[in-house]
Amino acid sequence: MNRDVRITAIRITPVAFRDGPLLNAAGIHEPWALRAIVEVETSDGRVGLAETYGDAPMLAVLEQAREHVLGLSPFALNTMEERLKAAIRPAPGAVEYTLAPGSHAAKNAAKAISAFEVAMLDLQGQAIGAPIVDLLGGAVRPQVAYSAYLFFKYAEHHGKPYAPDPWGEGLSPQQIVAQARRMVDRYGFQSIKLKGGVFEPRHEIDCIRALREAFPKMPLRLDPNANWSLATSKRAAEELDELLEYYEDPCPGLEGMGELARHTRLPLATNMVVTSFEDFRRNVELRGAQVILSDHHYWGGLRATQQLARMCALWGLGMSMHSNSHLGISLMAMTHVAAAIPNLSYACDTHYPWQDEDLVRGGRIAFEQGAVRVPAAPGLGVELDRAALARLHEQYLACGIRNRDDLRQMQKYDPAFTGVSPRF
Amino acid sequence: MNRDVRITAIRITPVAFRDGPLLNAAGIHEPWALRAIVEVETSDGRVGLAETYGDAPMLAVLEQAREHVLGLSPFALNTMEERLKAAIRPAPGAVEYTLAPGSHAAKNAAKAISAFEVAMLDLQGQAIGAPIVDLLGGAVRPQVAYSAYLFFKYAEHHGKPYAPDPWGEGLSPQQIVAQARRMVDRYGFQSIKLKGGVFEPRHEIDCIRALREAFPKMPLRLDPNANWSLATSKRAAEELDELLEYYEDPCPGLEGMGELARHTRLPLATNMVVTSFEDFRRNVELRGAQVILSDHHYWGGLRATQQLARMCALWGLGMSMHSNSHLGISLMAMTHVAAAIPNLSYACDTHYPWQDEDLVRGGRIAFEQGAVRVPAAPGLGVELDRAALARLHEQYLACGIRNRDDLRQMQKYDPAFTGVSPRF
Ligand SMILES: [Mg+2]
Ligand SMILES: [Mg+2]
Repeated sequence: MNRDVRITAIRITPVAFRDGPLLNAAGIHEPWALRAIVEVETSDGRVGLAETYGDAPMLAVLEQAREHVLGLSPFALNTMEERLKAAIRPAPGAVEYTLAPGSHAAKNAAKAISAFEVAMLDLQGQAIGAPIVDLLGGAVRPQVAYSAYLFFKYAEHHGKPYAPDPWGEGLSPQQIVAQARRMVDRYGFQSIKLKGGVFEPRHEIDCIRALREAFPKMPLRLDPNANWSLATSKRAAEELDELLEYYEDPCPGLEGMGELARHTRLPLATNMVVTSFEDFRRNVELRGAQVILSDHHYWGGLRATQQLARMCALWGLGMSMHSNSHLGISLMAMTHVAAAIPNLSYACDTHYPWQDEDLVRGGRIAFEQGAVRVPAAPGLGVELDRAALARLHEQYLACGIRNRDDLRQMQKYDPAFTGVSPRF
Repeated sequence: MNRDVRITAIRITPVAFRDGPLLNAAGIHEPWALRAIVEVETSDGRVGLAETYGDAPMLAVLEQAREHVLGLSPFALNTMEERLKAAIRPAPGAVEYTLAPGSHAAKNAAKAISAFEVAMLDLQGQAIGAPIVDLLGGAVRPQVAYSAYLFFKYAEHHGKPYAPDPWGEGLSPQQIVAQARRMVDRYGFQSIKLKGGVFEPRHEIDCIRALREAFPKMPLRLDPNANWSLATSKRAAEELDELLEYYEDPCPGLEGMGELARHTRLPLATNMVVTSFEDFRRNVELRGAQVILSDHHYWGGLRATQQLARMCALWGLGMSMHSNSHLGISLMAMTHVAAAIPNLSYACDTHYPWQDEDLVRGGRIAFEQGAVRVPAAPGLGVELDRAALARLHEQYLACGIRNRDDLRQMQKYDPAFTGVSPRF
């Protein structure tokens, strides 16, 4: 290995890809989801990859980071972290989206660190001929299990921007079971998550019951995205008690979750009230959530995710993984880190089946029995399909979306929709 | 890098080396200090090194670990950790020595993990041509500062096992200042620690005052090794308030330290009441120590030490580094990990100047202005001098010491010495 190799160029390419009309507590997914593809190039001609949020404030943050990363060795992760912690400031015009911790301005440094850490680890792995997982202490499992991530959904988007997706409408218990069946048949998933907080809790619990009947042995999860009041969450817990593997963010706030935790034996999971190490501290003091959904994109990278895992083990908390709409580079990074964490004991969330596009060479990444095999190729184990990158960048330029806004999108269907939360 | 490389042999060699007649709360150092040299050999003929405790129970623990490490890839750190956590059980006949967390049977798994982690990281570094620090995220500083570690001491050992060391007697304030002067002149240290808990607090505080006068700008530390009562520690704190950088383990117990913390603005440091991640949890609940002295040998390795550092940063605690009598392999491992930790902001402890032997090729490791330069050579950056290893192993066989026992040794000087603590 040549220790004189330095980072000489950074390219940040925003992309947009088709995304389904998926309903959630805040509204509905827009027809195009945004991501940024980060390419970090070295003096010996290698390119390291990462994928992160593609909203305008995040693009500004990545631009702020650029000068602090240029000139570093790809092995200088600690220096990169220190520099970005010191340099990154909230970008002007940041839009904070409560459902998506990736939009929180307070996480700007962690998000930038994560993006550059993944790209630098990709470079390290390429330089030494080892997959990233080896740089994280090695795989403790040969593949990483993901869960079937179900959404209430419409059959097609407002304004019909392109042909409807093949998933059809997903509103009734029967349709949700059909969606699950399709997803399980196609990908082999062995656990199921339903994104809730959309309809009356009664209806969502009926959907969970229908899933339980259709899949008697599958672990089930429900995530109302804090759209249920504490009282509603308590009432629902009684009925969900025997149905769920964990109960994800039913009600708002760490205090609310702590109060709920004292009223149910259901493990409470979160990606909303514990989204930083500072939150972790408060959570162990308040005894709120018992399962932390990690996400390297905003926790500060793969090594920080390992840090979180060790802290979860120490405090006796479970650990699972959160996702947003993403492409194959993110899926690979998630797979490497999940493979290196002994106590990442739950199947990880992924939105990947909802996408039909990607920009990795060789086409979309395969699931086998609901799991992604940990790559043995050097680095991340994926390369860019530059034609696809160009196409998804064109889509970005054309789509006009620069910040995710599920509320505004929902108002196209229902002008009276306010998104006030908790709604139930 | 060849991913098929596997660990094919493990050699564990106990060694003994001359150690000074250094006084502490438990008694006095014996004339020979013990360590174990761990060699981990791979199918491609490389040898990774580590140095750890050499007492008989630790040798038994390393033997227990052997079968679980053989056959692994040197990159399989996570699997090694999981296996040793599951397999290592308290060794029969373990002697627990309160001053030395390295003797605690509860830390057996962490100690074994640490030894094999360092050796495996040495192998990784050699395989890819990078120093260990690069595998820990890279150096944030080019050298690691150590402190002058002063001891009250006799001029020579009971029974005169070999010629007296060149340091002379160290009992009076004048002699302690002379010892400090010699150590600072030789090694360039820029901070000073005095091991206390030996004499009346009045005398030890007078020594600190003499050091302050002789070295007006040097940060000073005093470590009575929990040999002062809480009341004594509180009284002494008033006088030490303006003299010390930190006040290390004056009184026993986490509760005692917590109570003391509410009575002094001096930062309280510890390597006695926070020696595991479980202790860390209790400490942040009780608000006891504010500076944690890390030690990769019993905290579970270099990566675990980084984990500890991140937790110290998160809870606003300072971080320094503890040592026991050790040789150059340990000094190099300490230097790699300290270089990778941004918030390891205090000069590290080291007993190294008290030794006049070593078994690394090229002779003893040099200090420049009190610091050790982070090696750029692959792996640990040190190789075994096999003739020296054989000589120190012969000394082990001949010396007859199998478990450190400073109390028994002290009773040779003073048969009435009981070692009861806290003594003052
Ligand atoms: Mg969620
Ligand atoms: Mg100490």
